[in-house]
Amino acid sequence: MDVIKIFAPATVANVACGFDVLGFCLDTVGDEMVIRKTTNKGIFITKIENFDLPLETELNVAGVSALAMYEALKPDCGFEIEIYKNIKPGSGIGSSAASAAGSVFAINKLLGNPLNTTQLTEFAIKGEALANGCDVADNVAAALFGGFTLVKSLNPLEILQIPTPDNLFATIIHPQIEIKTSESRAVLPDHIKLKDAITQWANVGSLIHSLHTSDYSLMQKSLHDVIVEPHRSALIPYYDEIKTNALDAGALGTCISGSGPSVFSLSKGLETANLVRQAINNVYSKKGIDFDLHVSKINSQGIKIL
Amino acid sequence: MDVIKIFAPATVANVACGFDVLGFCLDTVGDEMVIRKTTNKGIFITKIENFDLPLETELNVAGVSALAMYEALKPDCGFEIEIYKNIKPGSGIGSSAASAAGSVFAINKLLGNPLNTTQLTEFAIKGEALANGCDVADNVAAALFGGFTLVKSLNPLEILQIPTPDNLFATIIHPQIEIKTSESRAVLPDHIKLKDAITQWANVGSLIHSLHTSDYSLMQKSLHDVIVEPHRSALIPYYDEIKTNALDAGALGTCISGSGPSVFSLSKGLETANLVRQAINNVYSKKGIDFDLHVSKINSQGIKIL
Repeated sequence: MDVIKIFAPATVANVACGFDVLGFCLDTVGDEMVIRKTTNKGIFITKIENFDLPLETELNVAGVSALAMYEALKPDCGFEIEIYKNIKPGSGIGSSAASAAGSVFAINKLLGNPLNTTQLTEFAIKGEALANGCDVADNVAAALFGGFTLVKSLNPLEILQIPTPDNLFATIIHPQIEIKTSESRAVLPDHIKLKDAITQWANVGSLIHSLHTSDYSLMQKSLHDVIVEPHRSALIPYYDEIKTNALDAGALGTCISGSGPSVFSLSKGLETANLVRQAINNVYSKKGIDFDLHVSKINSQGIKIL
Repeated sequence: MDVIKIFAPATVANVACGFDVLGFCLDTVGDEMVIRKTTNKGIFITKIENFDLPLETELNVAGVSALAMYEALKPDCGFEIEIYKNIKPGSGIGSSAASAAGSVFAINKLLGNPLNTTQLTEFAIKGEALANGCDVADNVAAALFGGFTLVKSLNPLEILQIPTPDNLFATIIHPQIEIKTSESRAVLPDHIKLKDAITQWANVGSLIHSLHTSDYSLMQKSLHDVIVEPHRSALIPYYDEIKTNALDAGALGTCISGSGPSVFSLSKGLETANLVRQAINNVYSKKGIDFDLHVSKINSQGIKIL
């Protein structure tokens, strides 16, 4: 196999209570990438469609993660990468993560799978760091492992795959404004109240328990964020209206996706996820801000070969 | 049935990463209580053996929890409570919780089980509040539900029963010094670093996952406390030596039990739990401080009728 085409999915990080550690993978929203073995050694970004992103390997997240892996494995060939980008950079649904994870996933396949998924995540984190200015794994882990993931620790890297109930669907609104991860991090305090932290880790524990037991009612009670949402929601126009209407339409929970501006809702069943979509559409279509709306099953597989 | 004799077990709260929310129940350490229906209306503490605790109903945790339940149910009888106390007050293994939970459990049985376990926990919390000065549920929930418990929220009260792997054993050392919960709370900061909180909730999530999957290796990696232990461990003489020796002997994790001074270790298998006991004994027997050492299976049942 000398060429591979993949679907590199969008992902939702934080998942309300799990700031910096939880993530899940989407199924119908993502980039496509074509990666080709070449006799020329090196990593070459040969095409990026839809968005104006750098072709220089060292300035592109897909290039940086691929190059780190390439330098570690030292294969007797090179790789060309074409990126057909559908996830807008800065949307908060893992645009850079899809690219950083996609390139290493594809090169690993073309080389006969020398690395396991955790090792791929290590290299994808290096690409992500270019976009974020720091090491974060919540989006890349969700893209590579699929389903719900918990970043237990970065050093050493340990990713846990949490069971994903069959009937869980996400509705994502992406208001077409850009919030950089760095800006979004700047609004967060260095210190938080111990009592809020206790609430948050109770919710993380109960969300994990609810995913193991497919307890949607408990999921609903656990999808709360008392730490980050109060600071970041002000960056997202009409956040409270999105949330109120989504919950009224039956969403189990609604919160900021990653560092925003996208907002995710989780629902039991496709029908409810579509009602949530409609409810958010009704609100946002009057606001004069362009937006995308997606409904997706949770993608338990992660990156897929097309 | 007009009289009931019960075993009211000791419990371990916090469980390293789960400050104020996690707990587990012990099997071989606990009080005995005899509760008897009387024609005289009211709650009467008629005997307390081994420790000098108040017999006045309103000043005794078992009395306060029983009275709260009694006033809610208004039964056409009264109850006498005898307490054969084996868990030293202030030991950090749920002495007051055993009493507060035991009385309501027994009265509920004598009345034909009108209340469910969460409702009993509500009343037991009122007894605990007398000892602690605030509402906490981590010990009483573990005593009433058994196994591992997660206090998802206090208001409304929601207790989750987390699966308990079969082969998990606790070793508890109780140095015979007293640390009051109120003192132990006073050393904690009101605010903590966000980055530490993230570490803590990753550990809570992974500990819950490890209990669901009986993954002892992950349990070992999750049983860490970066928030409370650094402040409270100084209150416990030779804490670091206890911990180092317990871990060297094979414990999965070692941390402060509740607000201390007891220190728990969790081990895979009885043999390792006994090695941990021996290792701690070797250290502490040279220190000139009296202590108790217990090894116990995790008690998945909670309070038992004898």
